[in-house]
Amino acid sequence: MSEGVAIRRLMTSAVAELESATWSNAFCIGNEVVMSGMTAHPATRHAAEPMDAYAQTTEVLRKLLAYVEAAGGNVRNLYKLVIYVTDVADKDQVGRARRDFFQAPYPCSTLVEVKGLVFPELKIEIDAWARLDVDLSRCE
Amino acid sequence: MSEGVAIRRLMTSAVAELESATWSNAFCIGNEVVMSGMTAHPATRHAAEPMDAYAQTTEVLRKLLAYVEAAGGNVRNLYKLVIYVTDVADKDQVGRARRDFFQAPYPCSTLVEVKGLVFPELKIEIDAWARLDVDLSRCE
Amino acid sequence: MSEGVAIRRLMTSAVAELESATWSNAFCIGNEVVMSGMTAHPATRHAAEPMDAYAQTTEVLRKLLAYVEAAGGNVRNLYKLVIYVTDVADKDQVGRARRDFFQAPYPCSTLVEVKGLVFPELKIEIDAWARLDVDLSRCE
Repeated sequence: MSEGVAIRRLMTSAVAELESATWSNAFCIGNEVVMSGMTAHPATRHAAEPMDAYAQTTEVLRKLLAYVEAAGGNVRNLYKLVIYVTDVADKDQVGRARRDFFQAPYPCSTLVEVKGLVFPELKIEIDAWARLDVDLSRCE
Repeated sequence: MSEGVAIRRLMTSAVAELESATWSNAFCIGNEVVMSGMTAHPATRHAAEPMDAYAQTTEVLRKLLAYVEAAGGNVRNLYKLVIYVTDVADKDQVGRARRDFFQAPYPCSTLVEVKGLVFPELKIEIDAWARLDVDLSRCE
Repeated sequence: MSEGVAIRRLMTSAVAELESATWSNAFCIGNEVVMSGMTAHPATRHAAEPMDAYAQTTEVLRKLLAYVEAAGGNVRNLYKLVIYVTDVADKDQVGRARRDFFQAPYPCSTLVEVKGLVFPELKIEIDAWARLDVDLSRCE
């Protein structure tokens, strides 16, 4: 058995924890911020009008960043996104949201169109990778 | 060239290795247990009746754990799951299987609905991340 | 704040960088080569005939390897692939391309069928994990 790495469950007021959940939203494991894929739920339920892909993407990125900040980090720690969209035609809206949220150099990003997400109104889910010791602005 | 990290191919009697496979099922790379996405195949072929999503999920988790144990680890080392289901309506069965297999705090978990998996009878595939130096029960 | 790890943006003549891109193709972060999911675009646009799944897979692997080489590595550093195909019937062609590109022991590999990729002619996207300090040929 290896010596253990420090591990913290991350909590943020930006994301509700469900008592019934059979998953954790986020951990800080050593320098790594490990997160579950995030969607814009429940904001999509509370919105007066349906949220488009731009609005959903922005909401998802805000939640992911809230967990990185809960770990003591910032937006420059996010270095990879795996993006699942339900309609690939939304890719330009996703790109625009990414441009407005990040600065160059942007995180790596994988984007595929899936058949569905956990609720029918969801257009996007993002699985993100972040490390507290990564700062994309210091990229050579 | 960096100095190499220790790497072991993992084998377990719980999962058959195909002579013709053009992938490896699992490696232990330093403290990381790296695995291919796992399905309930071939149990799904041998079952007297079709395996439902709960049964398939349990079988997949059992296989993933077998590899973690082959590396010298245990269930508390599994810290992230990426779950692909062919019918998102199965998510509650998946959640129930996760609840029965793990203890809180649960691993992070991403779940998306895909168009298909490698065999038509498969309802779920899970890609898992584990580290021997992670123990979710020691989470602060 | 943790002490920063060395990070380099990777460039290769094998893959064009788009001025308008809101993602980065690849970074070297410490020993890790982090990449965006790769497709056979734009070769698929320039080909005289439609590229089949074998040809697309080979092109994708060639691009992924170009980034690993730009980081100072080689094909033995690639230890995990997550493969998204638009038609799961292409899995044998993908397997054949993997066999021709790699040597045993092969990387771990996850394969799922998605609804679509960023352009309609694309049959495959691969998200790859590589580390400069991993050499699969030295696997015990």
